[in-house]
Amino acid sequence: MGHDSDTATGGQGVRPLRLAVFGAGRIGAVHARNAAALAGVSIAHLVDPVADCAALAAELGAARSPAATALADPDLDGVVICSSTDSHADLLLAAAERGLAVFCEKPISLDFSTATAVTEAVEAAGIVCMLGFQRRYDPDFRAVRERIAAGVSGRLEQLVMQTRDPAPPPLAYVERSGGMLRDQAIHDFDQARYMTGEEIVSLHAVGNCQIDPGIGAAGDIDSLMVTMLTASGRMVAMVNNRRGPLGYDQRLEAHCAGEVLFIDNRPQTDIRIAGPQGALSAPPMDYFIARFARAYAAEMAAFVAHLRGGPAPLAGIRDGLEAQRLAEAALVSIASGQSVTLTPNWQP
Amino acid sequence: MGHDSDTATGGQGVRPLRLAVFGAGRIGAVHARNAAALAGVSIAHLVDPVADCAALAAELGAARSPAATALADPDLDGVVICSSTDSHADLLLAAAERGLAVFCEKPISLDFSTATAVTEAVEAAGIVCMLGFQRRYDPDFRAVRERIAAGVSGRLEQLVMQTRDPAPPPLAYVERSGGMLRDQAIHDFDQARYMTGEEIVSLHAVGNCQIDPGIGAAGDIDSLMVTMLTASGRMVAMVNNRRGPLGYDQRLEAHCAGEVLFIDNRPQTDIRIAGPQGALSAPPMDYFIARFARAYAAEMAAFVAHLRGGPAPLAGIRDGLEAQRLAEAALVSIASGQSVTLTPNWQP
Amino acid sequence: MGHDSDTATGGQGVRPLRLAVFGAGRIGAVHARNAAALAGVSIAHLVDPVADCAALAAELGAARSPAATALADPDLDGVVICSSTDSHADLLLAAAERGLAVFCEKPISLDFSTATAVTEAVEAAGIVCMLGFQRRYDPDFRAVRERIAAGVSGRLEQLVMQTRDPAPPPLAYVERSGGMLRDQAIHDFDQARYMTGEEIVSLHAVGNCQIDPGIGAAGDIDSLMVTMLTASGRMVAMVNNRRGPLGYDQRLEAHCAGEVLFIDNRPQTDIRIAGPQGALSAPPMDYFIARFARAYAAEMAAFVAHLRGGPAPLAGIRDGLEAQRLAEAALVSIASGQSVTLTPNWQP
Amino acid sequence: MGHDSDTATGGQGVRPLRLAVFGAGRIGAVHARNAAALAGVSIAHLVDPVADCAALAAELGAARSPAATALADPDLDGVVICSSTDSHADLLLAAAERGLAVFCEKPISLDFSTATAVTEAVEAAGIVCMLGFQRRYDPDFRAVRERIAAGVSGRLEQLVMQTRDPAPPPLAYVERSGGMLRDQAIHDFDQARYMTGEEIVSLHAVGNCQIDPGIGAAGDIDSLMVTMLTASGRMVAMVNNRRGPLGYDQRLEAHCAGEVLFIDNRPQTDIRIAGPQGALSAPPMDYFIARFARAYAAEMAAFVAHLRGGPAPLAGIRDGLEAQRLAEAALVSIASGQSVTLTPNWQP
Repeated sequence: MGHDSDTATGGQGVRPLRLAVFGAGRIGAVHARNAAALAGVSIAHLVDPVADCAALAAELGAARSPAATALADPDLDGVVICSSTDSHADLLLAAAERGLAVFCEKPISLDFSTATAVTEAVEAAGIVCMLGFQRRYDPDFRAVRERIAAGVSGRLEQLVMQTRDPAPPPLAYVERSGGMLRDQAIHDFDQARYMTGEEIVSLHAVGNCQIDPGIGAAGDIDSLMVTMLTASGRMVAMVNNRRGPLGYDQRLEAHCAGEVLFIDNRPQTDIRIAGPQGALSAPPMDYFIARFARAYAAEMAAFVAHLRGGPAPLAGIRDGLEAQRLAEAALVSIASGQSVTLTPNWQP
Repeated sequence: MGHDSDTATGGQGVRPLRLAVFGAGRIGAVHARNAAALAGVSIAHLVDPVADCAALAAELGAARSPAATALADPDLDGVVICSSTDSHADLLLAAAERGLAVFCEKPISLDFSTATAVTEAVEAAGIVCMLGFQRRYDPDFRAVRERIAAGVSGRLEQLVMQTRDPAPPPLAYVERSGGMLRDQAIHDFDQARYMTGEEIVSLHAVGNCQIDPGIGAAGDIDSLMVTMLTASGRMVAMVNNRRGPLGYDQRLEAHCAGEVLFIDNRPQTDIRIAGPQGALSAPPMDYFIARFARAYAAEMAAFVAHLRGGPAPLAGIRDGLEAQRLAEAALVSIASGQSVTLTPNWQP
Repeated sequence: MGHDSDTATGGQGVRPLRLAVFGAGRIGAVHARNAAALAGVSIAHLVDPVADCAALAAELGAARSPAATALADPDLDGVVICSSTDSHADLLLAAAERGLAVFCEKPISLDFSTATAVTEAVEAAGIVCMLGFQRRYDPDFRAVRERIAAGVSGRLEQLVMQTRDPAPPPLAYVERSGGMLRDQAIHDFDQARYMTGEEIVSLHAVGNCQIDPGIGAAGDIDSLMVTMLTASGRMVAMVNNRRGPLGYDQRLEAHCAGEVLFIDNRPQTDIRIAGPQGALSAPPMDYFIARFARAYAAEMAAFVAHLRGGPAPLAGIRDGLEAQRLAEAALVSIASGQSVTLTPNWQP
Repeated sequence: MGHDSDTATGGQGVRPLRLAVFGAGRIGAVHARNAAALAGVSIAHLVDPVADCAALAAELGAARSPAATALADPDLDGVVICSSTDSHADLLLAAAERGLAVFCEKPISLDFSTATAVTEAVEAAGIVCMLGFQRRYDPDFRAVRERIAAGVSGRLEQLVMQTRDPAPPPLAYVERSGGMLRDQAIHDFDQARYMTGEEIVSLHAVGNCQIDPGIGAAGDIDSLMVTMLTASGRMVAMVNNRRGPLGYDQRLEAHCAGEVLFIDNRPQTDIRIAGPQGALSAPPMDYFIARFARAYAAEMAAFVAHLRGGPAPLAGIRDGLEAQRLAEAALVSIASGQSVTLTPNWQP
């Protein structure tokens, strides 16, 4: 509802912006449509060398351009990178070179040293670079963080997060995505930093394959538990897996000194069906695209607002690097069976 | 938990009391055990001409006495009447004559003019006479009433109550009990007066037989909706039937000017079982004996406390008569299809 | 989420449709935007003699036309009537005369004999006329009705509905709207027919003014309880008022032979805040525009789909008349204090 | 409710049993009353050298005996050990020597080598020795375990348990109790073994003092996270602390292949209070004595039933030792910052 006011202005009084969107897959389409729905924003270029994105381009009124054409457009205000993971680093470097503002899906690169180098280059270039940790823009997650940060809840002492996918991903995706830690759990690593407002100083993880033997054969895990400590002693627990019987199970508990904040799953309906066995409530929204639809819209609106002089994004490229550092540390911990002590420049 | 303090005294410092319990059926056993568990209370006589109550009498340390013997016991402090409905009036009159305090299960009599006469006789005799509207002693119902009465919630405007049994009663019971209105719905009629703190001035009811044709053949109804108004204009809705698919469904909503108070069903367990269809919570406590176990204990404790000088019971014989008056008015409304205007001495 | 597929087609393969929207107030803007978001639909005319709708017209790419111009457009496929209530009848008759398909907000007319005459004229003309009972298109209400209609739940025996506004309406609105029964409760009257799949044969209502004396002074009520019976004996209870302390309180319980279906309020967030006083869940969506946003989108999509040959709308002009007949009967019942027996052509 | 049948027998047909209860503190009184309430059970001796237990002894009809007298009673059938922790080992050994059946509160001894030796002596003696892990007898925890064990839920993969006290314990208690791990968390360690049906093969713990600096000064922790793995790879997470803002927070989630089983807190009431801020549900039962009242009754009934030939208790002395082994390993892990690999005879 809250977005109506933007739309209602009919684009009047806002600086017109021209964006290029790289990648027209599932998440690319989400971002492109969310951007195009904002007043005064046009998708100038839709770049996807693989997908058949003619319909999407037509819907958006975008040109289907090669990457080089889009990047060379002198009137471009920013780029939205939702292409395959292995293209992120080069596109980020190209945008940095051109001085273009960037919205980029995580991760920066599956190779952590590359991710580090790209982060440093982007920071050196001084461009806007917002990372796609959409959960920070979800109204519930954001309200919880802001309530804690405002001191309403008392000191956050124990953070408990659980994330489970509805079903294991295809094996092809497992290999391409960098594995469960860099792909799925990275959002929880980011939340650990966002919710506590601190860096993690030690981490312990156990991970194994209990659900899909194919995932194990591919060298990945499907079940995970992580414990983290911040410098001030706050504790964070993550419990993740690749298949929750109830669907997409994504919850958070922030145990503070004065109150406990729960973010529950959002049910698909508000129907309960009651009979002799009890009352059946509806299963959760069926996956992240649906569950976080409002978050995706809000983060793109925030990116555009920032390009027009609004506040800095809630997640920058450095946040992407730090969340990935925790994922790398978790991999080391799983492999060694021991805890990992983290320092600012810890490398795997 | 709260009752431990009574037990903990070990009977010291309380006036010993000797009670006679009439009726050793299901509810009689509940009352007898609750009374016997109170410090300093003994069940002197257990009277039941029909039921084999030897085991219960032994457990309670009670003599199995004929009614006349029990009533003639010069050291008796009070009687608990849980015998068959058709015996209530005579036992109440006998207790009134003897000046004995009485706890009596509803109803006073299935015949309303008899109920009226007995009420007047009991009031004239000046004996203590507590009616078994146990819901008034349920911690939840009582807390809601007290919160409203204390002015915390703002003016009560709309009261919505629903009562459904887990399954239709045996037909033999239907005939003996005076029907759904005098037997089941009478508790809701009592709550209408208790929660609003007012008398009802008009009433409309619809009743029919949708569940068990045998109930209809016996001249009773199994489905009921009642609307009532108090003198100050508060509205009360009752929705009742003889079979709720989820079991014993007994809920209340008090819509006040400043807040809404809900009394939900009490689930049998705190387990939720979640799968692809959603999360299944436990069904309600399976019937009134289980659901209102705490209420039964509290009302008997209140009766005994009153015999020792404590506060007056929350429900007296006049409350029994007035609730029954509403049941009679509902029968008239159902038969006539029209509303009934109630006056203090309205008779069916 | 489910609507993406429409949008995704980019308007290809669907019959282009040109609509005129009458009324650019709050609900008019909702309908106009929902229609415009559908593939292949354009808002040719936006008609509002009063409101400053320049921004909305610009956003929609619509001409701001006088009514006569819009109605005379030879290429018009349909009209959407969201103008003030007193204009509905004339616009419906004009559309009937022109043979134009209509989507019309309720009510047809505040004058029941006019509403009857317009209904007959529209039916005689044979035009498509969909009434704006959006609740029929809410995913939850629709799923419940379809589950019952499919026989999954067993026979529906008792339907309990509650509707409360967050706050009393402005007095100017009270007078213009036809009062609480014709304005607010009419949706529940419609649901009574929709959920039971039957006509109502008798009705009893009590209504008074407990909340806002100004409403009473204006001759309206702010508190309402209605009981209805269908021909087969199903019972319906409605409990409504003009101010629920928890906000927009709009719930339904369908008690069937085999199970009970509850439609709960939709909370604004999925956050619970727990402390010593208990756990606080979020208040409901704050009013019908927000709560039923999906329903409004779905009903407009259904109207457009029907214009392209899809299934008949779930609510036609006859449904508008029948719901209003129940509202009129309730007014009679409140005034007389007695029940009303309904026949097919009952008139107030 | 279900226990009525025992009581109802009035003690007939069951083997009379005479018990001695050591310790008349809070939990001693719970066990003594639960035992005394069972048909055919008498508390022959109540032993407490410190507490003034005259009232309790009178209530139970028990002699107040010195320990030696109680242990020398030739007609004793069993002992119930609820005395101070430092007396458990000697009493267990005395019972083992006398061949008496024992119900013993945890822990066996705060010194793990003593606990090991006592366990071996008790096992060598072949006496019945039931450990007071009451949670195994809670209807909810037991139902969840039995459902998993019966194969209904699919393989248990991730177990998540949280336990928080309503408030930090007095410092005197902290020192006497062996600390949070041996005192509070030991119940969760026991549940880890009970729910998975397996031994733990590795464990990692972090613990610190975030709540009460006095606890830290006393060398204990008040905040804890533990991760464990079983031999088959199941994962267990424990999150505990000494003060939950909402009171006693004691929940469990069993994530299985086919469904997820949640055990929620049991609310004190079934009232919800709804207003503009949302709906407030009741806080949990206020501590373990209240929350697990049914469990305490059931475990004592199971002990007595076993003395009469019924099934073996769900928790024996070996379970006490193994849970304590996990607590000791957690202490080692916290001190070292590293994981601990557990073998059957692992010692701290």
